Amino acid sequence: MSIKIGILGYGNLGRGVECAIKQNPDMELVAVFTRRKPESVSILSEGVAVCHIDDVEKWQGKIDVLILCGGSATDLPVQTPKYAEMFNVIDSFDTHAKIPEHFAKVDAKAMAGGNVAIISVGWDPGMFSLNRMYAGAILPQGKDYTFWGKGVSQGHSDAIRRVEGVKNAKQYTIPVDEALKAVRSGANPELTTRQKHTRECFVVLEEGADAAKVEETIKTMPNYFADYDTTVHFISEEELMANHSGIPHGGFVIRSGKTGWNEEHTHIIEYSLKLDSNPEFTSSVIVAYARAAYRMAAEGQTGCKTVFDVAPAYLSMMSGAELRATLL
Amino acid sequence: MSIKIGILGYGNLGRGVECAIKQNPDMELVAVFTRRKPESVSILSEGVAVCHIDDVEKWQGKIDVLILCGGSATDLPVQTPKYAEMFNVIDSFDTHAKIPEHFAKVDAKAMAGGNVAIISVGWDPGMFSLNRMYAGAILPQGKDYTFWGKGVSQGHSDAIRRVEGVKNAKQYTIPVDEALKAVRSGANPELTTRQKHTRECFVVLEEGADAAKVEETIKTMPNYFADYDTTVHFISEEELMANHSGIPHGGFVIRSGKTGWNEEHTHIIEYSLKLDSNPEFTSSVIVAYARAAYRMAAEGQTGCKTVFDVAPAYLSMMSGAELRATLL
Repeated sequence: MSIKIGILGYGNLGRGVECAIKQNPDMELVAVFTRRKPESVSILSEGVAVCHIDDVEKWQGKIDVLILCGGSATDLPVQTPKYAEMFNVIDSFDTHAKIPEHFAKVDAKAMAGGNVAIISVGWDPGMFSLNRMYAGAILPQGKDYTFWGKGVSQGHSDAIRRVEGVKNAKQYTIPVDEALKAVRSGANPELTTRQKHTRECFVVLEEGADAAKVEETIKTMPNYFADYDTTVHFISEEELMANHSGIPHGGFVIRSGKTGWNEEHTHIIEYSLKLDSNPEFTSSVIVAYARAAYRMAAEGQTGCKTVFDVAPAYLSMMSGAELRATLL
Repeated sequence: MSIKIGILGYGNLGRGVECAIKQNPDMELVAVFTRRKPESVSILSEGVAVCHIDDVEKWQGKIDVLILCGGSATDLPVQTPKYAEMFNVIDSFDTHAKIPEHFAKVDAKAMAGGNVAIISVGWDPGMFSLNRMYAGAILPQGKDYTFWGKGVSQGHSDAIRRVEGVKNAKQYTIPVDEALKAVRSGANPELTTRQKHTRECFVVLEEGADAAKVEETIKTMPNYFADYDTTVHFISEEELMANHSGIPHGGFVIRSGKTGWNEEHTHIIEYSLKLDSNPEFTSSVIVAYARAAYRMAAEGQTGCKTVFDVAPAYLSMMSGAELRATLL
């Protein structure tokens, strides 16, 4: 009997979840919910219902886990508490500063509905958070470093697109190699924002736009670019489509810590990701946690959880005995 | 109220546990148990009892978690089941092939005693196992690679020391850089034993020993060296002490996997360790899991667990709310 999954929201993330379910034979996609007209949405899977979001309540009892694929700005703060009362849910809420507030709201509703909700699932928050936590628990005397990239930042690309005279743009966040090397040496350096990452922008101008002015506006933009060494390349729309249409990302979580009676020994724990497709990797993490939500709910657990609360074995298709025999 | 820890076996690992406890303010070392005469054993901590191993039973109720620091060959197969009936215990049993059998024995005794036992804790088995499991659950279509080193292999060093004419020796296991690069490229190469690691040996000869014969014996030793490209250096005892007295180790767990409707996207997940002291790092992992054992037992859980069964939050000194606010 497979785990029945519903997808709410069919953008890059929803499509990624659909692809990931195909790789997990113990799962089955049963319905996709959309705010658009269902007949206008064409999905990849055959024989799967596409429904309007207003009909999701009717699917109670027919879906084991509902995966919420909306955005963190306006969708998830409303959707996750709402649907946690009806279903076991997973989201990828990634506004780090608002996680405690989101957790509290979702927890109350999941408890009320007797469901399990796992929030902030993905790679950061998600796998990066887990690695920060494991490494910090193992090496209490130490320092954490998180680097992102090389990868596309959607938020920064959008900020460039809002500049007058810009037709289209892609922004890459790139970790500085010397900073990575300094961290890996165990020197525990204090690094400024500028020392950790550079930003590279590929910009398509509107006809007649002033390139020098656009470049200046980007490079001095507060919060987004002013604190970084930023490079701006002007390219054609064709070149942007041909060479910059992917959504790669990744990064590094490194902890450098000391052990020994006099802290005489240095240890470096490093976790890194190199991802061709940011949304598809995030989706793959989400689908593994959907399995966990299903199993935890089946055991009678309820309430809001994060990756910190989920025992690793819940994520795997293998049984405990198989895991011990093959992966331990 | 701190978590009361006992250490059974005071070698490199036991001393490492003692050092790690010092870094964890919620823990307290209350007793060290040894097979030697207690008065002959001098420990680093002040005011801590050193007792004979035969007296450990008298400490029931006074120790929250007993950490077993014996060897996997003969100590732990007997000790872990025996003491799991009396205490919550942690071991670092690392004979991978015998883990299922060890688990079954320990589980029965821990259940009978109403205790929690966490076995095979360390980095391999341990953190490497966890990373293999997480990565495999996230990317079901993919391939795992584990590389060890650069580091000292105690077993291989011992094997060299048993060769006639050898006075002392240290062996380093070294991952092959080209193999690491091929794996990180996402090419999913099939790698032979010889392609993955080389072995470098530093050997001190007995007076009058035949160097050529010793080198030949080492390089052709079945299981240990015959399948590897092995380099043998003859050095003086002084040089061995000066340059090769540490116990560094480390390694890499890499999963290369595919996502997308047609598996068109490649992802690389990499976890690596660079350790100055293998036993102190292992001890640090063990101490974090001792906290987990204490908490799980306090919740009424019983039986044998592995790193796969322990929710990450149990390892951390921080509360759930602190973890969500600072590390998620």
